[in-house]
Amino acid sequence: MKKYAEMTKEELKAERVKVEAVYKAWQDQKLTLNMARGKPGAEQLDQVKGLLDVLNSDSDLICDGIDVRNYGTMEGLPSCRRLFAEILGVKPENVFIGGSASLQLMYDTIAKCYTHGRLGSEKPWAKLDVVKWLCPSPGYDRHFNISETFGMTMIPVPMTSFGPDMDVVEELVKDPDVRGMWCVPKYSNPDGIIYSEETIRRIASLRPAAKDFLLMWDNAYCVHEFFGDYVPFPDILSECARYGNEDMVFEFASTSKITFPGAGISVFVCSENNMNFTKKLLESQVISYDKVNQLRHVLFLKDKENLLKIMKQHAAVLGPKFRCVLDALDREIAPLGIASWQRPNGGYFISVNTMPGIAKATWKLCRECGLTMTDAGATFPYGKDPKDSNLRVAPSLPPIGQLEKAMQIFCTSMKLAALNKLIGE
Amino acid sequence: MKKYAEMTKEELKAERVKVEAVYKAWQDQKLTLNMARGKPGAEQLDQVKGLLDVLNSDSDLICDGIDVRNYGTMEGLPSCRRLFAEILGVKPENVFIGGSASLQLMYDTIAKCYTHGRLGSEKPWAKLDVVKWLCPSPGYDRHFNISETFGMTMIPVPMTSFGPDMDVVEELVKDPDVRGMWCVPKYSNPDGIIYSEETIRRIASLRPAAKDFLLMWDNAYCVHEFFGDYVPFPDILSECARYGNEDMVFEFASTSKITFPGAGISVFVCSENNMNFTKKLLESQVISYDKVNQLRHVLFLKDKENLLKIMKQHAAVLGPKFRCVLDALDREIAPLGIASWQRPNGGYFISVNTMPGIAKATWKLCRECGLTMTDAGATFPYGKDPKDSNLRVAPSLPPIGQLEKAMQIFCTSMKLAALNKLIGE
Repeated sequence: MKKYAEMTKEELKAERVKVEAVYKAWQDQKLTLNMARGKPGAEQLDQVKGLLDVLNSDSDLICDGIDVRNYGTMEGLPSCRRLFAEILGVKPENVFIGGSASLQLMYDTIAKCYTHGRLGSEKPWAKLDVVKWLCPSPGYDRHFNISETFGMTMIPVPMTSFGPDMDVVEELVKDPDVRGMWCVPKYSNPDGIIYSEETIRRIASLRPAAKDFLLMWDNAYCVHEFFGDYVPFPDILSECARYGNEDMVFEFASTSKITFPGAGISVFVCSENNMNFTKKLLESQVISYDKVNQLRHVLFLKDKENLLKIMKQHAAVLGPKFRCVLDALDREIAPLGIASWQRPNGGYFISVNTMPGIAKATWKLCRECGLTMTDAGATFPYGKDPKDSNLRVAPSLPPIGQLEKAMQIFCTSMKLAALNKLIGE
Repeated sequence: MKKYAEMTKEELKAERVKVEAVYKAWQDQKLTLNMARGKPGAEQLDQVKGLLDVLNSDSDLICDGIDVRNYGTMEGLPSCRRLFAEILGVKPENVFIGGSASLQLMYDTIAKCYTHGRLGSEKPWAKLDVVKWLCPSPGYDRHFNISETFGMTMIPVPMTSFGPDMDVVEELVKDPDVRGMWCVPKYSNPDGIIYSEETIRRIASLRPAAKDFLLMWDNAYCVHEFFGDYVPFPDILSECARYGNEDMVFEFASTSKITFPGAGISVFVCSENNMNFTKKLLESQVISYDKVNQLRHVLFLKDKENLLKIMKQHAAVLGPKFRCVLDALDREIAPLGIASWQRPNGGYFISVNTMPGIAKATWKLCRECGLTMTDAGATFPYGKDPKDSNLRVAPSLPPIGQLEKAMQIFCTSMKLAALNKLIGE
């Protein structure tokens, strides 16, 4: 097969006739498929159903001397804080256990910057004329949504294969209006890149002009390998502490992709100063999060070793799905030279970069064929992908049979978009 | 027994010698007792332990066609919305199901006024010079804490036996800086007063100068009778709608004092306009609340009729505790004329008004005798009770044996504080 870029116009047109026929045949099947969100599939949820069996009315509901049913213990059950301290390589006193979603903890951390200011702030950010925020891109659309809803000025930072381009970051943080940065440091969303040691060192040792610069470290995929073994990863809190920056960072994680996405527990990790500051503010808002569910997770997950066994079970389901996506791309797209993609070993996505100018068109063709994808552009601030090139593939939800069809539609749509673009109509 | 006010100084001093001896005897017992918070006791929690048995790994986890384990359905399971619609007398589409605490929903509702403004706001409240807020007092300390943390100017409104003094409220809302009001309409915290029909009508038909005036209707004790049968109560949303005010109110409730205080579900109720406005903002913050726990509550509570049976079980535990408090006050304090108190049929508190100027002293004497009470003053904005008179008794947590001792200490401390005050030392 010739690369599309090397074809003559006649060859391209002939190819388009073929691809259109394939596209039409898929369209006629009137399928409804979804590769839009990093949503675990039913097989994964079934594997962890045991979470529902660890507690019943005969159970001991006193844990660490605390009746888990009643009010109180805002920062979370000591046993649960110890469990996450082990998982994330920090001290239990640096761990706060939240409700079912780390997204809410992240939103709330930013919201409090606006309403109250954070440690080191001269005033609440709501009183500032401008708040600039660094957004390594492509990145996580829900992060960017939080920034956008608070009216931040988002500044895209290019991603490299080692993480955010730190030359750019170090330059940008000289601006005192730059108040923070989003990071998904392990299996970044969507690229699946693991930040290198040097990137982490350079982030941890930043000297931002803003004294209240906030590093939002979303360690969403801290134990989420789908190919190969668990990859240890540095603890950002002690890395920052090494450079006197321990108050700069909040780390987040959750069990959303370990147990039940909608009924898990979330955590943030921060320095002692940040913990004291935050708890004081939280006292007006929170009596306690759901300690019964915390106890369930303590009993079900047990410890890091057992947790990693559970993650191997998830990998047994996810691995073949990611293999299916990569195989389709390698077989259908690679020979044509119209896109490149990452080959991550963990996380929930495969990030595809098409030739410039066809991501939106590909997305639209997918939709018209019954396949829902993450919006083209969603991985960039304000939904604006300057090259109209990035598409995020989320293969976790569909069963493998559906996924194969979805990838056929995805590849066919991308080919058609590329041909239309190259033919110039 | 003579009233203290009718005693001569010599009689008072003789009485003090006796009361001091009693106080000393209690102090020597070195007890640790707590009547500070409306925290259900272990017997109540045991009665509802069945909540832990309604779901296990063999259960059907699809409800209303939704896999309750996965992400999504931000506004809550349809079944759960229907259940609370029945309980509160509203339509399911006006109900939003939250996490384990209505306090967080309330905080968040106010926080969004500050960061984004609410329906009808010209700008976010963070951009306003002043936000004034009506606080019927005595009231709920956690409400006042929310107002205080956002820097509101709190304006106390006197409570009558029919609810907030509406002559005062109607006058105050003419000020365009007055943006809202806290209400606990049924079994008000701490007085246990049920707002009268006329009070509710006057609230629902308010014509505040501020177009974005927010009525925070905390229906915390909507089904929480401890003496007698369930008392029906008007639905505030339709009351407000009758006067074109349906967008003025957010109603809140929770299962904190129905199932597990720390692991229940919460709800807010609002108009269609408010629901659309709020959901749009929440989309940046929330993927979904814990639908597994929502399903647990649907299966356990079943319907309003069954719920009211469960509340009768709570009443069987709580009733004797409230009786114990009232008996002690009637026996020990009433003859002395040094305090008066409410006699509610529901809620979680008994509000005691001492003679002026001895609430703080009573609280301190209690503490020095091992009894923790809600801070004197906590039931007023900024913790400032102008008469230093109100004390909130929360009898739900201690077993009845402990409660009897706690009430002895409470009454003895109050007597001693009154005697010290009257003798003038």
